[in-house]
Amino acid sequence: MGIDFTVFKGSASGSIVEAKGYREAGPTEVLVKISHCGVCGTDEHYRHTDQGLGHEGIGIITEVGSMVHTLSEFRVGDRVGMSYFQKVCGYCDFCVSGRQNMCSNVVFFGTGNHDQGCFGTAVAWDISCLFKIPDEIPSEFAGPLMCGGSTVWSPLADFNIKPGTRVGIVAVGGLGHLAIQFAAKMGMEVVVFSGTESKKQQALELGASEFHVASGPGSLDKVEKVGALLITSSVSPDMAVYLPVLAQGALMFPLTVGFEQMKLTPMDLITRNLKVIGHVVSGTPNVRQMLRFAAKQGIKPIIETFPMTRDGVEEAMTKLRDGKMRYRGVLVV
Amino acid sequence: MGIDFTVFKGSASGSIVEAKGYREAGPTEVLVKISHCGVCGTDEHYRHTDQGLGHEGIGIITEVGSMVHTLSEFRVGDRVGMSYFQKVCGYCDFCVSGRQNMCSNVVFFGTGNHDQGCFGTAVAWDISCLFKIPDEIPSEFAGPLMCGGSTVWSPLADFNIKPGTRVGIVAVGGLGHLAIQFAAKMGMEVVVFSGTESKKQQALELGASEFHVASGPGSLDKVEKVGALLITSSVSPDMAVYLPVLAQGALMFPLTVGFEQMKLTPMDLITRNLKVIGHVVSGTPNVRQMLRFAAKQGIKPIIETFPMTRDGVEEAMTKLRDGKMRYRGVLVV
Repeated sequence: MGIDFTVFKGSASGSIVEAKGYREAGPTEVLVKISHCGVCGTDEHYRHTDQGLGHEGIGIITEVGSMVHTLSEFRVGDRVGMSYFQKVCGYCDFCVSGRQNMCSNVVFFGTGNHDQGCFGTAVAWDISCLFKIPDEIPSEFAGPLMCGGSTVWSPLADFNIKPGTRVGIVAVGGLGHLAIQFAAKMGMEVVVFSGTESKKQQALELGASEFHVASGPGSLDKVEKVGALLITSSVSPDMAVYLPVLAQGALMFPLTVGFEQMKLTPMDLITRNLKVIGHVVSGTPNVRQMLRFAAKQGIKPIIETFPMTRDGVEEAMTKLRDGKMRYRGVLVV
Repeated sequence: MGIDFTVFKGSASGSIVEAKGYREAGPTEVLVKISHCGVCGTDEHYRHTDQGLGHEGIGIITEVGSMVHTLSEFRVGDRVGMSYFQKVCGYCDFCVSGRQNMCSNVVFFGTGNHDQGCFGTAVAWDISCLFKIPDEIPSEFAGPLMCGGSTVWSPLADFNIKPGTRVGIVAVGGLGHLAIQFAAKMGMEVVVFSGTESKKQQALELGASEFHVASGPGSLDKVEKVGALLITSSVSPDMAVYLPVLAQGALMFPLTVGFEQMKLTPMDLITRNLKVIGHVVSGTPNVRQMLRFAAKQGIKPIIETFPMTRDGVEEAMTKLRDGKMRYRGVLVV
């Protein structure tokens, strides 16, 4: 059978281009008819390449590969989500211990499947990186949870941060507005840091206990210290602003892909037992738990929708790039 | 009663000066007649200040304060060791959970007790930071364990690094030569990185499984990756040399006090789930366990001894500063 699809790709000039493709389902793959896809900052990194964009896809399974019934519970008609990871091996030490996000043989967004992407009408997807979407979560909200939600879930849930801990969230954006909700529903004391007052009311409504304007070195020195800091800003912040607000033993999570130096010295870390933790998305059990938690606790991304067309993709990506998205764009077929 | 003592201090010019002092035992203090003291790189940081130097002291209790019998098992005649921490409060959240090295009210080397130091003949010392030395450990070996041993113990023992893990040790020096022994006796696969071949034989005799010369970017690219990296060099190494040898999820411990940027980007950490962990010395239960382990497993610092005199201190500190110590200096009264 197989499926013909339309896909929106990057190009050398940076313009979004529409392309056509065809896929059949490999033995461990399903074909998914896409209905929605979130727009993530990581898509921007591939805008100048011949890569099918989009990795927060939601859709319905229309066909399953020959091994899918044997190896999984996925069936035609299931509503599923896809994310940053496209295929994990299932047999490396990481895969067999629930850390599929560290898989030694992983294929992730940008490293494979260049012909397709979730900015499009359909994809073939390996079941090792496929997730059922709980009924409680509308598809337009499920997209941003797949990558954005998973990215903020793991720091909060997988590193022994106890309920009640003061957790700092740097920036209220695509990741930050989800982190505030997750942390608040986990019983954390959520302390939001933002460049201006403009998002204060929104942050408090999402569950923040406190809101502080980070306006340069010294601006946070009187804030009660936090035990963990999730850095979700699109550009790495000046650590001199944030070091004074970190408690002894605090965990720092740089969550946004950044290529500039972090400006930390051994002395900064040693004397206060600080930890800088790199973590990408989540392992398979963690993504499942995140989706269940979001469903039961009513975590709702705040989204702006755009049509799943070349112009829609262009508009959404431009808005995100300009820092004007409130707070996650979702393309709708 | 009280005790008169001689102490060796730093001075504005950087010369070591001999001074006299007198102390009585406070209610929770003991007086200790010093017999030995290790020479640590951190002493160097205070060479230009009016600070009694030395924080790896070993000696015999000669007098106890009024509360010592009520609050502890320390008695006159006990052989004890002192380290980087001088007093912890015992009631903050960290103290009551075994993380005295993060104490909110800590007094540590350089922040108090400027009149005395373990480079000298006697000190008054709070029992909150005092340790009995197991009989198996000669005093000249016990000194370097107090700060140096504790500093390498915690990264290896307190962060869930499983036996059999490949552990990288950067530099064979005062800390590194202890880390090799501890890691080997814990059943780790010990992979030593050094600037030249000169310490290869020594490293292998201490328990290293492998020895590699780190001679610049690319030099370690073919080495099988390590799950943890203890950076014990006196100057922070070029991370571009070591990033290729870190396994997914690896832990990095910068153990040497350094004030220069570490040259790591969020991207370096995120994509490979790397963690940079700042940790200073060890909590009280960990120091006790380290001493017991060292006693039972026969961990032996390789030392050079110097007389506990002004000239002896000067000579030992100069040799350490010049990178010529093999591998830890010990001053002997």
